Amino acid sequence: MGRSRTVTAISELRVNGDRLWGRIEEMSRIGATPAGGVHRLALSEEDRRARDLFRAWAESLGLAVSVDGIGNMFARREGTGVAAGSRPPLVLGSHLDSQPTGGRFDGPLGVLAALEVVETLEEHGVRTARPIEVVNWTNEEGARFPPAMMGSGVFSARFELADALGAADADGTTVSDAIDRIGYRGALPVGGRPIAAALELHIEQGPVLEEEGCEIGVVTGVQGARWFDLSLMGDEAHAGSTPMSRRTDPVAALGRFLVDAYRRVERDFAPHGRLTFGVLAAEPASRNTVPGRVTVSVDLRHPDAPTLDDMEDALREAATDACLERGAAWRLDDVWRSPPVRFSGRCIDAVRAAADLCGYSSMPLMAGAGHDSVHTNDVAPTGMIFVPCEGGISHNEAENITPAQAEAGANVLLQAALRLLDPPPADMLSAPTNQV
Amino acid sequence: MGRSRTVTAISELRVNGDRLWGRIEEMSRIGATPAGGVHRLALSEEDRRARDLFRAWAESLGLAVSVDGIGNMFARREGTGVAAGSRPPLVLGSHLDSQPTGGRFDGPLGVLAALEVVETLEEHGVRTARPIEVVNWTNEEGARFPPAMMGSGVFSARFELADALGAADADGTTVSDAIDRIGYRGALPVGGRPIAAALELHIEQGPVLEEEGCEIGVVTGVQGARWFDLSLMGDEAHAGSTPMSRRTDPVAALGRFLVDAYRRVERDFAPHGRLTFGVLAAEPASRNTVPGRVTVSVDLRHPDAPTLDDMEDALREAATDACLERGAAWRLDDVWRSPPVRFSGRCIDAVRAAADLCGYSSMPLMAGAGHDSVHTNDVAPTGMIFVPCEGGISHNEAENITPAQAEAGANVLLQAALRLLDPPPADMLSAPTNQV
Repeated sequence: MGRSRTVTAISELRVNGDRLWGRIEEMSRIGATPAGGVHRLALSEEDRRARDLFRAWAESLGLAVSVDGIGNMFARREGTGVAAGSRPPLVLGSHLDSQPTGGRFDGPLGVLAALEVVETLEEHGVRTARPIEVVNWTNEEGARFPPAMMGSGVFSARFELADALGAADADGTTVSDAIDRIGYRGALPVGGRPIAAALELHIEQGPVLEEEGCEIGVVTGVQGARWFDLSLMGDEAHAGSTPMSRRTDPVAALGRFLVDAYRRVERDFAPHGRLTFGVLAAEPASRNTVPGRVTVSVDLRHPDAPTLDDMEDALREAATDACLERGAAWRLDDVWRSPPVRFSGRCIDAVRAAADLCGYSSMPLMAGAGHDSVHTNDVAPTGMIFVPCEGGISHNEAENITPAQAEAGANVLLQAALRLLDPPPADMLSAPTNQV
Repeated sequence: MGRSRTVTAISELRVNGDRLWGRIEEMSRIGATPAGGVHRLALSEEDRRARDLFRAWAESLGLAVSVDGIGNMFARREGTGVAAGSRPPLVLGSHLDSQPTGGRFDGPLGVLAALEVVETLEEHGVRTARPIEVVNWTNEEGARFPPAMMGSGVFSARFELADALGAADADGTTVSDAIDRIGYRGALPVGGRPIAAALELHIEQGPVLEEEGCEIGVVTGVQGARWFDLSLMGDEAHAGSTPMSRRTDPVAALGRFLVDAYRRVERDFAPHGRLTFGVLAAEPASRNTVPGRVTVSVDLRHPDAPTLDDMEDALREAATDACLERGAAWRLDDVWRSPPVRFSGRCIDAVRAAADLCGYSSMPLMAGAGHDSVHTNDVAPTGMIFVPCEGGISHNEAENITPAQAEAGANVLLQAALRLLDPPPADMLSAPTNQV
């Protein structure tokens, strides 16, 4: 990083890691929390300041910034040649909003690395026939306004614009009000225009790359996820006066169910099946009352839809067995289903080849779920690049990566982007340049 | 019930079941809920009206009603003879306050049956050397102001008067404010005076008597109870991006723990050991986050203190085993301990003999926990009588008993009270009377 060397070919281009890291640090001051994280909820005053800073940086690079009706920001570097203006662009980016007590890298890394890619091309005089747009998607986190991945979802027509604008936060403020308050309702229609391909650099938000000692994750897709509420129903009874033999205790059924459910998933659906019970509650939630009902949230994940079906069946069997043994009843209510996503083979290949070219170790990886790329994948060939994060920790102020990890991710983004350009730029630079 | 017959001896005395039921029905109109229960929180306006009605009934029987500094009400029938005024009284009663959505019998049955006992003696001209007091203890439920069994606890010096008066409800109103607002802070010092013995009639609040087809429960004591909070600690992780093999999931440890804990209690501590997990919670309680911590409330009961120690050890072993298997950590925090209570042998014998005398089937029974009798037992020989309740349901608007069950309980209260009088009244009534 920072060493000067002479480059003569496109394949030798590398980003400026110091410059990228400086921008990450500057961006992370907006909404900085004392514990080293950021509080930058979608469409808040902090989000406005982050958007203003992104716009200023983009415009200083000569990019034309346009904003659409849900606040998605596109900083466009025009293509060259006769048809440049009408060619679908290559879109690179992520999001600038954060969780309430979020980290500095979830989102901004992808936006600022895309900006760095454009600046690197600019610096070396690399012109491309196809336009490149750096995107900041509105409200990826969904922490203030549900649902998550809102801006990209409206762009891809997965969500209706009117529904998204009508979503309200806990105080009753709608997206529509908030977007006007910060001045980011743009004139550009949302979506409805072709894009050539999309790439997103993101931190892994899991421990795999770090534990494998691997520098780059070649994201092949996003696991399918199914959310349920499982209820186990028994009979409310007084804890003091009801003998064990006369109880129908749903907590006893829960114990049997949990043991069986984990055993099935860990034995029959390893290594990709994932099972999480994030929320537990009992009713009436009184210390001296046997609960009449226990509810647990269920989060089931797997890369293959048919296997997800099998996992769901296994859960139902586990619930049936546990309730038979304990005389309880159960029901499984659907909350949300997100089918597995397979990214474009061309994008996956471009990311893998870019990592190889740059000399980084890489491995294929499925994303946990929930990135704007899930939505762009509906409308364009899409790929993602992961870099490791410390301890796999994310959605947390302690979220951390090193400058070298950020730089590696940005280099792979640069070289993968170049590979996806069609027509490709000339391999040789017009004049040898100093890589700073 | 209601048939007229001639009685010539004390042992033939029976209460007037119709009169008792009429009073129960009238009392249950105060704070009546649409679903057939009552809402009569301690020291509320409804409680004031219930107290006023009780006072009016007592005074119409010629009893002298006095109120102490925590609002406990004593309706006294004076004894006869030279030293009557200084003889410690026999105390009969229970409480008139209710749960927020409570039943009609939990408490009032014991107070109104005691009143019926006195009216029966009055009616038949039975004078006793020892005074009899009908008591309404303040705030047995603890639903508005913790702790429960407050008035009897201050009477028995288990609680400090100042602490009790300072207890606040959810709105910040203290017992001291509330008691003045309804005009029931009396001049009588709280406790500090001897009582000869105490008897309390109550509904069982459990299913045993009904399922055994038994009319009277001879309560031998109150189980010991221990309350804990068990925490199982693992590592927060993203539900999507963290493989099962890399998790330390406290919910998985919970499953193992529950199965083992129920197995140990049901196998090793049957039939008296009881184990209840009434409250369950996970942190951070997010659907797509493996919880870092799971907390469950533990309610452990047994009639013997050493066995409670063994049960507590068994729980700790179950937690250790579960956490070893899953790599989690645990802690058990003490919340409350109530040692087992053994009622007076003389009172138990009196209740059993009274049931036999009246021709009711009876069985010995431990109370679940939590009656004013636990506190009076600290300062005087104490006994309790249980009658069945429908389906064992209590602390519920559906709580129900039959008029015959109420009458049976009151008859046993009457005859047990007579047996506890020392000196006993003359066995033969001064003149034969018609029992109505």
